[in-house]
Amino acid sequence: MALIHYPVLNKYGETIASAVTNLDLHDIARAARTYGVKTFYVVTPLQDQQILAQKIIGHWIEGFGGKYNPHRKEAVELIRIMDSIESAMENIRQRSGKKEVRTVVTSAKQIEGSIGYGQLRYLISTGSPYLLMFGTAWGLSGEVISRADYFLKPISGTKEYNHLSVRSASAVILDRLLARNE
Amino acid sequence: MALIHYPVLNKYGETIASAVTNLDLHDIARAARTYGVKTFYVVTPLQDQQILAQKIIGHWIEGFGGKYNPHRKEAVELIRIMDSIESAMENIRQRSGKKEVRTVVTSAKQIEGSIGYGQLRYLISTGSPYLLMFGTAWGLSGEVISRADYFLKPISGTKEYNHLSVRSASAVILDRLLARNE
Repeated sequence: MALIHYPVLNKYGETIASAVTNLDLHDIARAARTYGVKTFYVVTPLQDQQILAQKIIGHWIEGFGGKYNPHRKEAVELIRIMDSIESAMENIRQRSGKKEVRTVVTSAKQIEGSIGYGQLRYLISTGSPYLLMFGTAWGLSGEVISRADYFLKPISGTKEYNHLSVRSASAVILDRLLARNE
Repeated sequence: MALIHYPVLNKYGETIASAVTNLDLHDIARAARTYGVKTFYVVTPLQDQQILAQKIIGHWIEGFGGKYNPHRKEAVELIRIMDSIESAMENIRQRSGKKEVRTVVTSAKQIEGSIGYGQLRYLISTGSPYLLMFGTAWGLSGEVISRADYFLKPISGTKEYNHLSVRSASAVILDRLLARNE
């Protein structure tokens, strides 16, 4: 999975690079670990943001944090910082030894031709590599969405309101796609 | 639903009152709104923490925040600050006009006699009032757990690892209990 900080939209629909936040990394890494995600890519082309992300990770892996909270360390170890979505895909190709990586975008908006959770759950279970992308700020840019292989249906709760944080939405999506059936 | 800041456990299993955090309130309020939760109780007996929570809410309802982000306002409006679990239950009795409120505790630990998601989903759908409780810090105190009517099964991902943040866990649990089936 990947948390994308560029290219994403701001409130006015303009393409921006968003800031890396401590809690996004922690919450999403813990969910990634819980649901057996292989790697959690944090994508930002900004060097200062890459350094910030590396500092957060280092604290929990090598620093005081790792001793204080070993569970946190296990989660944060899944993080790889990448400068672009293409770099993340290249990393998956190298690690998996497979040429083809399918990309899946998540969005709070209804996109025509989107696939359902059951269908994607099945596709993932076949063992082919998939990169599941989550946008920060006001969501992934149109360019990323249109280049993806699959669009995942938005989460619908009980009402029309659907404004989950990326931390909540990613946990729910991983649960729908990867939780053990009981 | 209620987010409990007292009585909860610290890392050493001692009963403490935890601090209210801005992001817990926002993330969980947005999930509560998405899934049609009636009220999101924030429980803390500490007066300074009640004032802090009230400030956070006020900013988004009356202040600049409400105009800047009306969706956030709709979510934050679900929050009621309460000094105890008993006060939250009394509030539900008054608002629902029903005498009996059932309490459900969530935990990352396996508790004997716990009920599954399908079963609780059915119980909630009958329309009786239920209070679903989430602990902050290292989880709800043993006293709260033992007094509850129901213990909900822990979330299992794919691995033994299960260390979701309360923000992630509450979103997943609301999704399992309340999402529209599609």
